[in-house]
Amino acid sequence: MTTIEIPDGSGFGPDNLPYAVFSTPGTAPRVGVRVADQVVDLAAALGTDRQDEVFAAPVLNPFMAQGHHRWVQVRERITALVAGEIPDTAVHPVGEVMLHLPFDVGDYVDFYASEHHATNLGRLFRPGAEPLTPNWKHLPIGYHGRSGTVVVSGTPIVRPAGQRKDPGEASPTFGPSVRLDIEAELGFVVGVGSAMGTRVPVDAFAEHVFGAVLVNDWSARDIQAWEYVPLGPHLGKSFATSVSAWVVPLLALESARVPLPGQQDPQPLPYLRETRSWGLDVELTVEWNGDVVSHPPYREMYWSPAQMLAHMTVNGAGTRTGDLFASGTISGPERDQRGAFIELTWGGREPITVRGEDRTFLLDGDGVVLTATAPGAAGGRIAFGEVAGCIVPAP
Amino acid sequence: MTTIEIPDGSGFGPDNLPYAVFSTPGTAPRVGVRVADQVVDLAAALGTDRQDEVFAAPVLNPFMAQGHHRWVQVRERITALVAGEIPDTAVHPVGEVMLHLPFDVGDYVDFYASEHHATNLGRLFRPGAEPLTPNWKHLPIGYHGRSGTVVVSGTPIVRPAGQRKDPGEASPTFGPSVRLDIEAELGFVVGVGSAMGTRVPVDAFAEHVFGAVLVNDWSARDIQAWEYVPLGPHLGKSFATSVSAWVVPLLALESARVPLPGQQDPQPLPYLRETRSWGLDVELTVEWNGDVVSHPPYREMYWSPAQMLAHMTVNGAGTRTGDLFASGTISGPERDQRGAFIELTWGGREPITVRGEDRTFLLDGDGVVLTATAPGAAGGRIAFGEVAGCIVPAP
Repeated sequence: MTTIEIPDGSGFGPDNLPYAVFSTPGTAPRVGVRVADQVVDLAAALGTDRQDEVFAAPVLNPFMAQGHHRWVQVRERITALVAGEIPDTAVHPVGEVMLHLPFDVGDYVDFYASEHHATNLGRLFRPGAEPLTPNWKHLPIGYHGRSGTVVVSGTPIVRPAGQRKDPGEASPTFGPSVRLDIEAELGFVVGVGSAMGTRVPVDAFAEHVFGAVLVNDWSARDIQAWEYVPLGPHLGKSFATSVSAWVVPLLALESARVPLPGQQDPQPLPYLRETRSWGLDVELTVEWNGDVVSHPPYREMYWSPAQMLAHMTVNGAGTRTGDLFASGTISGPERDQRGAFIELTWGGREPITVRGEDRTFLLDGDGVVLTATAPGAAGGRIAFGEVAGCIVPAP
Repeated sequence: MTTIEIPDGSGFGPDNLPYAVFSTPGTAPRVGVRVADQVVDLAAALGTDRQDEVFAAPVLNPFMAQGHHRWVQVRERITALVAGEIPDTAVHPVGEVMLHLPFDVGDYVDFYASEHHATNLGRLFRPGAEPLTPNWKHLPIGYHGRSGTVVVSGTPIVRPAGQRKDPGEASPTFGPSVRLDIEAELGFVVGVGSAMGTRVPVDAFAEHVFGAVLVNDWSARDIQAWEYVPLGPHLGKSFATSVSAWVVPLLALESARVPLPGQQDPQPLPYLRETRSWGLDVELTVEWNGDVVSHPPYREMYWSPAQMLAHMTVNGAGTRTGDLFASGTISGPERDQRGAFIELTWGGREPITVRGEDRTFLLDGDGVVLTATAPGAAGGRIAFGEVAGCIVPAP
């Protein structure tokens, strides 16, 4: 039997308990929970009845579909388990397992919920015009991304090729993107779906959403700028979206809840009014080739994730277990709080220093790692699993 | 044993052989092929080896994933089967079976490939501006739709609610859409996917695409007009998209291939140049409450479906079995060839007569049926299965 020691500041104490899907040379992909630097094999440590068979599944979807009551129950059982002794065979050092995409992604919707980001992008993409479109403060703007190219942290990102056209050119040219960027985001995973023709009320958020992941929504700005009018981003985004392997349960984020940053003005329509906001004090860190270049603050977001889900379903669109919706780039008011390089370098015109070099967009071989922490129930901060990716050349 | 008689003009002779997933009170959902007005149960009639177990699956995905060589082989076996006698238990009248969503939808991308439609919509949504955006003739514009709300023909469509803002109003109002519309489209279903980081060359279309369906991309024009700048359509479309139950194999559409309507000018970039075009002479019919109101001609589309797939993957985006991509509204140059009511009624300002009444957009209780035919190998025309839907009131 093993007892897991939790060092101070681990970020993965009993007030966190994020879930992943892992495998080892001797264990097929299955559900694990992280405690300090160990992965606990839930099927081996906890599997006692029929309901627990979900832990032997290669994705979190069957467990997530069991619903809020069950999520609470399992969390209580895991809390009791990790406080005591665990069978040796059910514990693996996190460095010795392989982590997989934790859930089958249903639909993926990306929002645009940071006022700072939307204002910056408006200035960069539509110079001379009002940076925020007239609808921006009335509804959380979002669009569907590509579910089939959501990949787990660590997956190499192949530089996309595509069409771009500089304003001075008569016609577009084709080639690998020369303005490859990141978007640091928080994503929310639906556990319990909702039927077509019904809505998820804004205050029912926690009954439907299982947890949160870090998201890097890789973006080719040159491809995006040429293609996105009038139907929105497509090829500039669809080549890859990375998510963290660890899904932090919403139950662990209760202590991170904060009001939205100021009164929403104009007041949103009734279906978007929360009784108590799901603003979250999650602080991200962006590392570029090992240098920290930004600290995007999720607490600065204009729209809460509960408002996003309520809006996304107000037209009767159904949701499914595994649906992923993300915040859009998290940017704060300060320069070193911007979650995309196009903002950090102001469209590439104001390079930043990375490892002693002036840099604007991503070069082949570059690596980006997003991490995050949030206040936990035990008084310290809980950690998200990282989302990492390296750029490999276009073929 | 039974012999299936095929009446003249059936549209479902041996040069068509579309696939669906059907069930009966005594048969779980499984793969069927249509011959005249009969459904042949492939698992019962053809299941002889391990590979044929795919016919007992509740979706076409496992069969589609077996690839082009297998599609050809199975088509030959079905052709031989239906020319002779079939066991009685393997044949069901089409009116006595229940038809299901024929495939698990991976990603759903909707294009905007009709020059007539894009020009009409540009005039209606952006009066005073150039109707086609500068990128339109350089790339097939498309965006991701919601996979989870793709439904099979016959599913009732709940009128969506949402935000809208008339130009004269100071702020948006909320309520059921008052400009509910259709989009008559052709959709293409990926059988064999492609890996992330690779492209599907424009001439490899038939190796990847299994077949075609009719699509009704229901659209709430008031919601769409308020939300769609800058990230494209979302709530105005995401509530429902209907597809026909029958998937016409691409192998049956060889006789329908036609050149695109005129030279593409400017010439597209090399990755979009087809050796032989996949333009298709598919003629749709739109029935509104039983009155035929339009005949959208697919042969008039500016971009071919092979160009759409090549574009969609040129950035290295992967594709999966079950991915659906649709043409966007099919509109021809004539008024009675327009595939959306917003075009047919010019934004609601020029009503059309339906069952003796002036009509613009859809009312509760309205029904829309799309059908289509194309030249078949036997010299006549083959038929698509219909895509039908009725509007039920918002809750």
